[in-house]
Amino acid sequence: MYPESLQNLIDSFKCLPGIGSKTAERLAFSVLELEDEQISVFSASMQDAKEKIHRCKNCNMMTDMDLCFICNDISRKESKVLCVVEDPKSVFLFEKLDMFHGKYHVLDGLISPLDGINPEDIGLDKLLDRIKNDKFEEIIFAFKPSIEGETTSLYIKKILEGLDIKVTKLASGVPIGADMEYVDSLTLERALSDRKVIE
Amino acid sequence: MYPESLQNLIDSFKCLPGIGSKTAERLAFSVLELEDEQISVFSASMQDAKEKIHRCKNCNMMTDMDLCFICNDISRKESKVLCVVEDPKSVFLFEKLDMFHGKYHVLDGLISPLDGINPEDIGLDKLLDRIKNDKFEEIIFAFKPSIEGETTSLYIKKILEGLDIKVTKLASGVPIGADMEYVDSLTLERALSDRKVIE
Repeated sequence: MYPESLQNLIDSFKCLPGIGSKTAERLAFSVLELEDEQISVFSASMQDAKEKIHRCKNCNMMTDMDLCFICNDISRKESKVLCVVEDPKSVFLFEKLDMFHGKYHVLDGLISPLDGINPEDIGLDKLLDRIKNDKFEEIIFAFKPSIEGETTSLYIKKILEGLDIKVTKLASGVPIGADMEYVDSLTLERALSDRKVIE
Repeated sequence: MYPESLQNLIDSFKCLPGIGSKTAERLAFSVLELEDEQISVFSASMQDAKEKIHRCKNCNMMTDMDLCFICNDISRKESKVLCVVEDPKSVFLFEKLDMFHGKYHVLDGLISPLDGINPEDIGLDKLLDRIKNDKFEEIIFAFKPSIEGETTSLYIKKILEGLDIKVTKLASGVPIGADMEYVDSLTLERALSDRKVIE
C-alpha cells in the first residue's frame, strides 16, 4: 500500500528495538516533513556516530577518543572506588545524577547462560586486570536487580576472594515514592529481608 | 557528557515529533548496535523517500508516481463518492480498514486561524476544481472531530451550496468498547444529541 521508498524507510525504523509498526510509520512520515538539509545531517550523524564511537581502552566505556571522559577526568585520578556496570548507558545515567565521583568499568552485558552469555563473553579479563593493577579499595556492582545481575556479582566476587577489597552492590528495595500496593512481591520480600535499623 | 558524534545523532532524533530526550537517547544507542550495512540502508532510505515521495497530481495523496495507487485503481473509476481527509495518513488508515471503496481527496491540513492556517493554505482550490469536474454524488468529510475539523467542514459545505451534492461527515459518539465512565463529557454530549432511533 505504501510507496516503496516509504515502505523501505518504515522497515528501517522497525530495525530499531522497541519500535513497532505504528511508531515506525509515524516516524517515517515525520522524516518526510523534515528539510532536505536536516535529512542529510541525520544520515551523516548516523554514519558518523557508528564510525567514531568505540570503547575506552581503559574502562570499556563508549567514547570517540582513546580514553573516555571519565578516564580523562583528573579529579577522579585518585579515587579508589570502582563502580562496575553492565553497559555504557548506566555510566551516563549515574553521571547525570552527579552523585558518584569514582571510576567506572563497563562490562559487555551480564552473565546469562540461558541466553548463551557466559563469563568469558562479558569482558571480565579486562576488569580483573584492572582490579589487579590499580589498587581499588571498593568495588560496587551496579547491575540491574535480576538473576543475571546476581549471577554476575557472585561470579566476580568469587574471583576476587582473597584480595583485600570491599565488594558492595546497590541496595534493592521499595522505590522512593512508590505506592505500596503497586510494589511487586519480590521487591517487597527483598525490602523486608534487607530491612534497616532506624538510628 | 556524550561523545560529540553520539550527541549529534541524539539531536537528530529529537527533530522528529514526539521524540523526547530519553527516547532519542535510546534510539541513538540502538543505532550504534546496528550493522554498518543496516546504517547505510537506513540513511539511503531516508534520502530516497524524501526525494521520491511527492503528492498525487489528482488527489494530493502521497505517492512516488504521477498518480497515487487510489487514482490508479480501475475498480474505483466509476465511484461517485469522494472522501475528503486532512492528511495522507488518513487515507492509509481508511485503506487498512478496507471498508471504503470510493475516491479520496487529501487536504493540506485543516483550517485553524489560531495557528495562522487559513482556507487558502489547505489546498481547497484543487478540491473544488475536482468536485466541479468530476460529477460526485456525495462528499464525505473525514476530519478529526475538533474545532478545526468542524470549521473546515462548514467552510467547504458553504462553498458547495447550490451544487446538487450530498455532503456528509463521519459520525461522532461513544467509541465502541469504551467504558462509559472514561468517555469525556464533550463526546457524551455529542452522542446524546446525535442519538439514533433503534429500528
